[in-house]
Formats: sequence, structure tokens, C-alpha cells
Amino acid sequence: MNNHEFFMRRAIELALMGKGRVSPNPMVGAVIVKDGRIIAEGCHREYGGLHAERDAFSRLREPCGGADLYVTLEPCAHVGKQPPCTEAIISHGIKRVFVGSDDPNPLVNGKGNAILREHGIEVKTGILKDECDSINRPFFHYIQTGTPYIVCKYAMTADGKIAAVGGDSKWISCDKSRRLVHEMRAEYKGIMVGINTVLADDPMLNCRIPDCPSPIRIICDTQLRLPPDSKIAKTASEYRTIIATASEDYEKRHALEKMGVEILDVSKKDGHLNLTELSRSLGKLRIDGILAEGGAELNFSLLKEGLCRRLYVFIAPKIVGGQTAKTPVGGVGIDRLDNCIRLSAPRISNIGDDILLDYEVI
Amino acid sequence: MNNHEFFMRRAIELALMGKGRVSPNPMVGAVIVKDGRIIAEGCHREYGGLHAERDAFSRLREPCGGADLYVTLEPCAHVGKQPPCTEAIISHGIKRVFVGSDDPNPLVNGKGNAILREHGIEVKTGILKDECDSINRPFFHYIQTGTPYIVCKYAMTADGKIAAVGGDSKWISCDKSRRLVHEMRAEYKGIMVGINTVLADDPMLNCRIPDCPSPIRIICDTQLRLPPDSKIAKTASEYRTIIATASEDYEKRHALEKMGVEILDVSKKDGHLNLTELSRSLGKLRIDGILAEGGAELNFSLLKEGLCRRLYVFIAPKIVGGQTAKTPVGGVGIDRLDNCIRLSAPRISNIGDDILLDYEVI
Repeated sequence: MNNHEFFMRRAIELALMGKGRVSPNPMVGAVIVKDGRIIAEGCHREYGGLHAERDAFSRLREPCGGADLYVTLEPCAHVGKQPPCTEAIISHGIKRVFVGSDDPNPLVNGKGNAILREHGIEVKTGILKDECDSINRPFFHYIQTGTPYIVCKYAMTADGKIAAVGGDSKWISCDKSRRLVHEMRAEYKGIMVGINTVLADDPMLNCRIPDCPSPIRIICDTQLRLPPDSKIAKTASEYRTIIATASEDYEKRHALEKMGVEILDVSKKDGHLNLTELSRSLGKLRIDGILAEGGAELNFSLLKEGLCRRLYVFIAPKIVGGQTAKTPVGGVGIDRLDNCIRLSAPRISNIGDDILLDYEVI
Repeated sequence: MNNHEFFMRRAIELALMGKGRVSPNPMVGAVIVKDGRIIAEGCHREYGGLHAERDAFSRLREPCGGADLYVTLEPCAHVGKQPPCTEAIISHGIKRVFVGSDDPNPLVNGKGNAILREHGIEVKTGILKDECDSINRPFFHYIQTGTPYIVCKYAMTADGKIAAVGGDSKWISCDKSRRLVHEMRAEYKGIMVGINTVLADDPMLNCRIPDCPSPIRIICDTQLRLPPDSKIAKTASEYRTIIATASEDYEKRHALEKMGVEILDVSKKDGHLNLTELSRSLGKLRIDGILAEGGAELNFSLLKEGLCRRLYVFIAPKIVGGQTAKTPVGGVGIDRLDNCIRLSAPRISNIGDDILLDYEVI
């Protein structure tokens, strides 16, 4: 690891402090270095707050003329909620700027770097680019497609089951894995399940880690079967809840809306919700990332439609067997192996005695 | 890593040179060290050949008086196919002996060490014990139980399927994984499948790596359905083949025996072969380790009966979905998660883009 990577890695750590708080903005971290020493650090802490570069400048306790700036994402050159960061970089007399990710927005990509260079600042891009890109996948995907970055998550036994033959599914994964799922929930703007999961488990789908934001709950409920006495309906005024439905039962819609539920109309396709249309509608609601904790049917539909871009697979050191036990991805399935949905090689983590495989859909 | 571990690790490497060649003896490696320098190395190369310690002594090019000996398994003190190694250690003037695994045979355990100590040799045990134990699991299990150490191996997709809904199963795993399976076949004395696998795939079940031994083929075939024109039957004179059956169709038995097949009588239990009885019979035939590449039914039976002690799970970066697609462990299944079959945390390897999880059944 050279010095540039060392400082960029610190900027990535800082960026991650904005996890779950800056959406639909990207997480960004910045480090100001003078004479080989960090003299200020900053990050984008919450949506609407200072950008990482300006946050770092605000924490300076000594002049930074001639210093280097490390920033995980190309500095912005346009006026949004905040004045352009390029101005601040120039006015503070920064000499060199080291950039991780390029700006994914084709309209502004390269503009920030160009303005800095016009002002005689040396700009070097692509420092730990992969790592910098990976922390903002939802943002990158969303800004390029207008649709949410959807991640399917499931926990299965070492023989590929999500429940025992009797239907018992509590719990496949260990405490640590379940705690990690709550951290994941804080990272994504939305959480999605099918109505069958609600009917079977009556879940809350919130984030139970103190001081962490809970995701917007999105229920795929073609026929509007959500029970008014479900935990989801009863807590809809507390946690934002969107029910995607093709039902025209206006009485029930009205009753749920009075409880605080938002109803989102989606057309039907092959008897189910048109998930591609739903994805576009959720994008318009500025939902940039979704953790789908669906059952086998929703997982298959999201994967088959090409909407799922990433997969978190927890594998517990347990065997339950059973030809009829439920598996994580169901539906009609893919006919032949040649036509399978292909994944990247996974990133692997040990979570307690479980394994977490983190795949990208390719 | 201290020096003792360094030299023991080298002894383990040497031991592994006997892989697939020494059964039912253990793999053993030995290193002779003088003044911090390895002056000779040895291993047990093949069944009936020199023991590791004597192999090392035979390769000495300088006197070893006062030297240290590192050996992965407690030296033997009894006369078997070879004279006791303790004699050779004493007569060569070895000063200190570092031992990895204890001898698992309760009748001789500690005896070798005791004799060495009686002769004024310093003996230190337990050097990299876990690693040394792990290379000889089949031997340890066999010598303690008289039954083979059975390992189930399967390859599944990231959604827990061993075939697409259409039945297509070629290939789930990548080239490198399939090559590794052939290496595994060379490690175990026997390979086991159910008759359904033979009827479906007409496999050879040999080891296709040049100069590597092929395992003894064991087919669980309750009703003796093995087709005389199957590859297994046709090559039975070339590769040792055992058909375990409860059938009394003497005409068919005789026909198969004429082709070189060995028939092993096993009683029935719940309509299937009594696998516990089969395991005992195979132990009597000196089969100390078996790689079971069964389908879902055989895997479930071996796991449920407590006969499978270890599990190799290959996971391919593919999704096929399908509620009716085959999964790796079938049968009637376990009713509740609390009653599941529990595994250790796995050892994890990357094999190409696949993952290999290596579990012990606990």
C-alpha cells in the first residue's frame, strides 16, 4: 500500500460514516494532507449537509495552502444544495487533488477535475477506484438508470433450504448474521418483501439498531391482501410504508391510507405485479437502493427480470434435508444450466459460524 | 510461526506425498534438523513401504547424532509390516523428538513416546496438532470405529440447486472444481453413489488424473438394478466395484459377478439398504475412507444415520431457481430447525469462481 492508497483508504472510512444518512446523495470522504500528515478530515454526514470537501475545510486548524486533498468522488462543479466544491478547493490553495471514483453522472463527469486543472491544480484520478466505486453502487446505479439498485438477501442452510420441511424458518442464520441484516437495512433506502412474507411472519421490517434509520417498507401485494391488523399496517404512520398493488378495492385502499400506508398503483404482468414498472415508480419516489428480503417467488422474479443487481447469501452450518423444503429462489425456474443467471465470484465473510457470500449479478 | 511450527509444517507437506497411497495406514512425514538446518526428510510413500522416520534416516548424508526429529504422528513402538520406528530413533542418537498427532489407537497411544523418554530422548507432543490430525481423519476414524470415514460431496448453485428444473445438471461447478473432485477421489479408498445416479448419468467414478489411484466403486443398489451394459459393470474387472444389495436375484448376481463385480449382501431397513450395516461391512473390507457423491436421497440417509462425518460443498456463482429443481439433500427431511444436523464453521477455499465449503459434522 503506497501513501496515496493509505490516505484514500482513510477517506473511504470517513465516507462510510454517512451510511444510510445521505441517500440519494453518494457517501463521500475527504482528507487534507500536508507534509505527509493529515491536517483535516471530512465527510458528507447527512442529506443536505456539507459536502465532504467543505466539511474537511471547516475542520482545519492550520492553513492548508499547498496541501493535497484526497476525495473518494470527483468534486462537484455545479450548484446543488451546496455551492460547488471546486470553488472551495481553489480558494483554499490546494495544490494536488487525488480522486477515487469518477462522477457517474454523464452530464457532469470530468467537469470538476477539468475546472481544478484550469486553475493549475494537479489532479490524479482512479486512486482505489474499485473500493471507492463499491461504497456507492446504489447511487451510481440510480443516477445512471433512474431506478433503484436492488439487492436480494437470503439465509439458507448448507443444503440450500430456507426452512425445514415443516415450514419452520426461525432461525436459519446466527445472531451475528441477523444483526448484520439490521445494519444492511440501515444502508438501503427501501426494504421489499412479498405479501406472503407479511402474511406468514407478520414482520416489522425496520432497523432495530439504535440511532440508525429504518428503510421505507415496500410490500408487493398484487391483490391488496395486507391485513389492517398486521404490524406493518399498524405502524405505517411511524415507518413509511408503500404498498404496491394492482387492486382496485377502493374501500380497502382508503382504510389502509387512513392508517398511513401509501398505495402505489402498478399494472399486472402474467398475474403478478409488473416489477419493472414498480422499479421505475420507486425510482421516481427517489428510492435509490432496496434490500429485498423476499421469499422464493419475489427473489426469482427480481432475478429473472434483471432487476436484482446484487445478492447477499448467508449460509448457516446446518442441514435440514427434505425434497419439499423451501429453497431461496423458486418460481418456474430456468430450464437449462446454460441459461442460468450468472453471478460474479463472491466476496466472502465469516459472520459467526455463518458464511456471507456477496455476489454481483453479471 | 516459530521454528518448531516451521519444521512441522514441512513434515506435513511431506506426509501429504502419501495421499491416496498409504491407506489404511496414516500419512506421515518426518524431518531431521541439526543446528537449525534440515539434514534429511522422509515420508510414508506407499502402503507396506518404509515409515516416514526410517525413510528420513535412509536419506541422511551426514551423521545425525544429537539432532532433532519432527514427525507428524507419534512414532510406532510395535512390530507391524516394519520394525518399530522408536528403535531407529534411539539407535541414530536423536536428542529431541517433536510430535504432531497422538497415536489414535488406544492400545498403543503414548507407548512410542514413553519408550523414547526411557532412553533419555526429550519428547514434545502437540506441535501443530490440529493440522497433523486433519490430514489423517479417515485413518483416525477408522482405527477407532472400524468403519469408514464418510465424506459427502456435492456441487450446488448459489440458490441451493443441483440441477435446473429440466433436470440438466452438467455442469454446476467449474472445470477447476471438477478437477479437484478427481483429486479428492484419489484421496479416499472408496467412492459411493446410489443406483439412481448410475442409471441417470452412467458414470465411471474413477480418478482421471494420470498416475493417481482410482477409488473402489461402491454402489448402493437395493434391488440390484445395475445394468450389465453400464460403464460401471463393463469396467468392473478394471476398477474394483462393490454392489451393495438386498436382492436375491441370483441369476443377475451371478451375471454381474462374472463381469468382475463384487456383490455385498446388506439387509433392508425401511425399504432401503441398512447403511449402518453396510458401513460396518465396508470397514471389514479395510475401506477406511469413502467419498460419497450421491444424489439427494443417499446424502440425506448418510447424514441422518450419522454416518457422514464431513461435507464438501461446492457453490457455483449461478442461479437457476425453480421450486421443483433438485436440491443436494432430500429424503423426508428434518421436521424442525432445532433438530437440524449441525456442522462446524467451514474451511473456505476459492476454486476458480466457485467456493468450496469444507464442514465437519458435529
